[in-house]
Amino acid sequence: MKRVYMDHASATPVKKAVIETMLPYFDRHFGNPSTVYDMGHEIKKVIEEQREKVARLIGAKPGQIIFTSSGAEANNLAIKGTVFARQKKGNHIIISAIEHHSVLNSARFFERMDYEVTFLPVNKYGLVDPERLRDAIRPETVLVSIMHANNEIGTIEPITELSAICREKGVVFHTDAVATVGNIPVDVNELGVDLLTLSGVSLGAPKGVGALYFKERLRLMPLIHGGIQENGRRGGTENVPAIVGLGKAAEIATEELEGNETRMRELKGRLVAGIHERIEQVKYTGHPENRLPGHASFCIGSIEGEALIYMLNQHGIYANTGSACASKALKTSPVLVAIGVPPELAQGSIVFTMNSENTMDDVEHVLDKLPLVAARLRELSPVWNQH
Amino acid sequence: MKRVYMDHASATPVKKAVIETMLPYFDRHFGNPSTVYDMGHEIKKVIEEQREKVARLIGAKPGQIIFTSSGAEANNLAIKGTVFARQKKGNHIIISAIEHHSVLNSARFFERMDYEVTFLPVNKYGLVDPERLRDAIRPETVLVSIMHANNEIGTIEPITELSAICREKGVVFHTDAVATVGNIPVDVNELGVDLLTLSGVSLGAPKGVGALYFKERLRLMPLIHGGIQENGRRGGTENVPAIVGLGKAAEIATEELEGNETRMRELKGRLVAGIHERIEQVKYTGHPENRLPGHASFCIGSIEGEALIYMLNQHGIYANTGSACASKALKTSPVLVAIGVPPELAQGSIVFTMNSENTMDDVEHVLDKLPLVAARLRELSPVWNQH
Repeated sequence: MKRVYMDHASATPVKKAVIETMLPYFDRHFGNPSTVYDMGHEIKKVIEEQREKVARLIGAKPGQIIFTSSGAEANNLAIKGTVFARQKKGNHIIISAIEHHSVLNSARFFERMDYEVTFLPVNKYGLVDPERLRDAIRPETVLVSIMHANNEIGTIEPITELSAICREKGVVFHTDAVATVGNIPVDVNELGVDLLTLSGVSLGAPKGVGALYFKERLRLMPLIHGGIQENGRRGGTENVPAIVGLGKAAEIATEELEGNETRMRELKGRLVAGIHERIEQVKYTGHPENRLPGHASFCIGSIEGEALIYMLNQHGIYANTGSACASKALKTSPVLVAIGVPPELAQGSIVFTMNSENTMDDVEHVLDKLPLVAARLRELSPVWNQH
Repeated sequence: MKRVYMDHASATPVKKAVIETMLPYFDRHFGNPSTVYDMGHEIKKVIEEQREKVARLIGAKPGQIIFTSSGAEANNLAIKGTVFARQKKGNHIIISAIEHHSVLNSARFFERMDYEVTFLPVNKYGLVDPERLRDAIRPETVLVSIMHANNEIGTIEPITELSAICREKGVVFHTDAVATVGNIPVDVNELGVDLLTLSGVSLGAPKGVGALYFKERLRLMPLIHGGIQENGRRGGTENVPAIVGLGKAAEIATEELEGNETRMRELKGRLVAGIHERIEQVKYTGHPENRLPGHASFCIGSIEGEALIYMLNQHGIYANTGSACASKALKTSPVLVAIGVPPELAQGSIVFTMNSENTMDDVEHVLDKLPLVAARLRELSPVWNQH
């Protein structure tokens, strides 16, 4: 059976070249970078080379990159690290209503400690309005965190405008760029952010590694206290093989990004048009243009998303409904609620995320099977039959 | 040139069998365990199998294991997770004077927030006195954290006695067992601990993975907030290949531990005796018997430890001076200060940590070279020449 994997936002196979580059660091170059003998020095040098590669991908300097164990850890470090370091400045945090769980729950953590969190609403495309951000900032605001692109609906936020407002007001600005780095060009200077989270997920790097970009002189309380690793900003022995994997994947992405982006837009264009042609009562969620190139998300009326995923799975198609972190926890996606999708339609959420491994054949396979599966599920739906 | 690696406490090559077991999880079984389709379920099942293997190694139940990205993260989770969850109970933390930086600095983090930290002294062998712990506990004490064995001097603490006192007083007890799990039998029930940190380091597992054992019903604030991974106790996509590696390494350790331990004690016995025979003014640090089987640590008079490491390195010998995390940060080891080694002698610290890969040949090689290197360094030492 043909297998079509279109859930790259949840997980992606590690690229062959990346695995090969990592392998010697498991048993041959296995030293601890903090040791003083030759092997330690060599490994330390290798880590710094990876830092350069990751920095280059996002227009940063190597000294501005902190390696972490995941995008989630980098988000926690950005938020808790900033808020704890600025305890005397104030007790107000602003995030958008559609942030990833790691941002949302890091902010919420402070509500227990007499902090207030403002959740900025988004419009029907999932966009944050810069003027609403301006109005929400108070003298006691210490941090604003708004994601670069949303993983569920693909919408890209106006980060440059949002960060400019924060700079003007002297508030630290963080963006979770897990969904964008590796998919579209990301430049920390153009974006004007103080902190930016990335992970290996969109890069074909292994699980277990991410990074936080931070602007020089920004105070940051470590999330994982320990030794002097990462300049005292993140304790624990460096995960050398994974960092080497992230470096290699960043290097590949730096070279291939532009070509991939164009191809992704073509595939997505065909997928979106085909689904609209072949299935009725479909809502394309997120921004129609200003969105991730390989990202297509829909709500299909009178269908239950999880059932849809199961049945597509039986046809060898892998897609998602809502975000992977939330998919077992929540029935209705808060992101779809935030953009005003009615709950009954939000039930039928389906998200396709493609990468450079996907082909037009894959898209055609989805376009063959999805209408059949949708029709079958609708046959079983009392709601559809009433209609 | 013969190479003898005796710094296994800092890093250890990943076992071949472990690498082979991990490999398919990079690109073949790459799914996100939180997804609802078949690949997600399969990976989720694999993670639960690893949880069983790790639990078995320490006499725990699978549901009591939280996977983390390192021992340092597990230590941070144990301490911050407990202290934040028990904020209303009190503001006093007790740790020993010889804890790892990740425990020490996690406790210190709370000093900024009106918490008080008591540092329990140790005797000349590095042992914590249970009666001193009893005296230090107050009504407002929320957590005691005392390591199972010290990585610098090898001493094994009387955890069973210490935890019994905490249980009696209703105080949560955590132990950092990074140095023991994989080196000696560890049973959480015998130890009577509420929380126990382990890492892959002593197991031949890859970097980037550790675990925290916790007793049921213990409240724990997540360190990394995020989705529902690890039952809501640790956010971020699971590092599947590394978890698989840890599981395999735990399985191997469960089988091989006993035989290895006996062999390690033999090698260490010869190393310790040989060094005392061949070098004068040597102090064997840590407890003479109650210590890690493959761990031998010394202070060599009128010698600078880092110079010793460099020169041994030139003879293909890898050893450490103090802990790897601290070795670039500090000149005098706080552990050696705590056990009362005079600063001038503490300068000459050297630590050998062996594992099952080491042989009697390795020991003889060290015994051939170390006296020559020590003599050469003493020739250059003004202190030695005065003497």
